[in-house]
Amino acid sequence: MKIQDYLRRQGERIQSELERLVPPESAEPVTIHKAMRYSLFAGGKRIRPVLALAAAEAISAPPAGMEAAACSLELVHTYSLIHDDLPALDNDDLRRGRPTCHKVFGEAMAILAGDALLTLAFQVLAELPVDASRRIEMTAELARAAGTVGGMIAGQVHDLEGEGLPPEVSLLERIHRAKTGALLRASVRIGAICAGASRQQLDDLSRYGEHIGLAFQIVDDLLDIEQSSEQLGKTAGKDAAQHKITFPAVYGAAESHRMAEMELTKALASLDSFGPQAGSLREIAELIVRRNA
Amino acid sequence: MKIQDYLRRQGERIQSELERLVPPESAEPVTIHKAMRYSLFAGGKRIRPVLALAAAEAISAPPAGMEAAACSLELVHTYSLIHDDLPALDNDDLRRGRPTCHKVFGEAMAILAGDALLTLAFQVLAELPVDASRRIEMTAELARAAGTVGGMIAGQVHDLEGEGLPPEVSLLERIHRAKTGALLRASVRIGAICAGASRQQLDDLSRYGEHIGLAFQIVDDLLDIEQSSEQLGKTAGKDAAQHKITFPAVYGAAESHRMAEMELTKALASLDSFGPQAGSLREIAELIVRRNA
Repeated sequence: MKIQDYLRRQGERIQSELERLVPPESAEPVTIHKAMRYSLFAGGKRIRPVLALAAAEAISAPPAGMEAAACSLELVHTYSLIHDDLPALDNDDLRRGRPTCHKVFGEAMAILAGDALLTLAFQVLAELPVDASRRIEMTAELARAAGTVGGMIAGQVHDLEGEGLPPEVSLLERIHRAKTGALLRASVRIGAICAGASRQQLDDLSRYGEHIGLAFQIVDDLLDIEQSSEQLGKTAGKDAAQHKITFPAVYGAAESHRMAEMELTKALASLDSFGPQAGSLREIAELIVRRNA
Repeated sequence: MKIQDYLRRQGERIQSELERLVPPESAEPVTIHKAMRYSLFAGGKRIRPVLALAAAEAISAPPAGMEAAACSLELVHTYSLIHDDLPALDNDDLRRGRPTCHKVFGEAMAILAGDALLTLAFQVLAELPVDASRRIEMTAELARAAGTVGGMIAGQVHDLEGEGLPPEVSLLERIHRAKTGALLRASVRIGAICAGASRQQLDDLSRYGEHIGLAFQIVDDLLDIEQSSEQLGKTAGKDAAQHKITFPAVYGAAESHRMAEMELTKALASLDSFGPQAGSLREIAELIVRRNA
């Protein structure tokens, strides 16, 4: 129960900071700002910014600008969802229980809204009220995590090209480490960098981020086969329909569940050197593995 | 002749720096790197990075990292061309005399290649061997110029939404100030910031950038009606076919030519306080107005 309160409270901080960072719907050109806000305020779980806040907490009292730094991760995540949903990519009509951005605003505007959210993410980091060297470190971190060399775009390409290929362990890990893992890891690292983490703390938190990243994706793959579209707020059963390479397809459901638990154990072990101020990170890790949507 | 030599020499510096900055075609995932390189090495004029180098020259001896900073502008420009050419936007088959990115690599890969070039632009700036405060200032500059508030994306949205509207002066200026003007202005400013310009120098160079930006767009609109597709290396006559709002449509060709010359005069006047080391900026401004492709 305590973690649910924590998530709600942090989610509200993120919500009001995003409200402040994204131009209002009345700002010209209005259509693009409407499209950006439509996807950004669609009731996402804000897991990435909340991870950033929790990681910062594990290091020190949250510095000024911490919420904005955390929001940069949600901006990048939302851009990736908008572009992923496009007809040329996953061609998805439903996201977070609502029509996808291109269904409402058209393809051209959805492409530009994604571009705009990605661009805004970097602007937000560059304009943080934090010293320049930390800002630059966070900017580089976000760009690498979102990029083509082991980053999010690499994962999307592997994912696209992996459709219909025989399920194979090395490809599976490569896809997921890049596609969702890189940005989750960056969420933890950006929070830690913003709060002034030491090299050792950053290393420990990076390992935590890698383990929860993998756990997150395993559970995501499991939910796709075990839950309904209504429960998920997005189309269920898509992975199989698109012949995607998933953990259940490679390892079976039972073994996948076991693997997710193992990643959780390792994530928690990475936090051993942290005291009670890493409590939220611990509870978030458990929640990621035990969630049902 | 001198300026042609200068452009060729600077173009080569940019070319080899881009070669270094963009992952090789052999890097996994290979398709995305091939798509990025296909569009990036398609024989563009490199006007934005060359402007950045020339602006830096006007301030001081080019600092380390200057070429890479200049390349960030070409990365953003190329991303915008790839996304602009997509079927959902301008639906163009020809760019720089070759099939557009999506014609060769498919729409999904073209969308991701654009995303990747934009992301890489910010990574390049964040990783420059320049002091952190200048890096951050350049990053913010690029993000604002590429964004939705008076930046490149705003221009694209106005352009999309302006198709078929009655040609009107205020809309025309708003489109062009944002669509091409913002990034050309940022090119000059990023070069100047990298070289350590004073506030006054930055202001003067910004005015120069605004005037050549407007001149560039007026001449672009004129070329679209006065030249053939072969000469331009892209589809000519498209503006009229798509009922775009252009300078010749609003003012007529003769008056548009006169306006371009007036912008050139103002651009040159903005450089009055600079000595001979602003010579390249002066010659580039003339070239922009007098070019035929």
